[in-house]
Amino acid sequence: MKVRITIMPQAAVLDPAGVATAHALEHLGLHGVSSLRIGKLIELDIEGATEEELHQACRDLLSNPVMEDYCLEVIS
Amino acid sequence: MKVRITIMPQAAVLDPAGVATAHALEHLGLHGVSSLRIGKLIELDIEGATEEELHQACRDLLSNPVMEDYCLEVIS
Repeated sequence: MKVRITIMPQAAVLDPAGVATAHALEHLGLHGVSSLRIGKLIELDIEGATEEELHQACRDLLSNPVMEDYCLEVIS
Repeated sequence: MKVRITIMPQAAVLDPAGVATAHALEHLGLHGVSSLRIGKLIELDIEGATEEELHQACRDLLSNPVMEDYCLEVIS
């Protein structure tokens, strides 16, 4: 199955890369940025795993639950 | 407007972080991974910019067009 996992920094957690990127966009002339957050997107082809095993892998390996939220979508 | 930009390594480009993560999933017992690629997801709130300006920023700043493909979606 094809799986897409998005991992974003939690809203309460500072995202320094996002802040730096927002400033860089301002330097490019895009002044209206009110929020910019950078996360990870993992696209995965896997056979023989259950969705629950994948959620477990998201919690244990792919995301840091203290600072990040993840979302797992089975695409096909 | 709210914009979501996904940036993925091109299919022909080696993704070492993806390979390492696939190996780590195997160590967790998930042996059926046939492909795993890691990209970036940028969520952005911006006012006063056109979609064309955002595409330009994607090409000039947010992605590396030599190695990455980006996809820009206006969410609202």
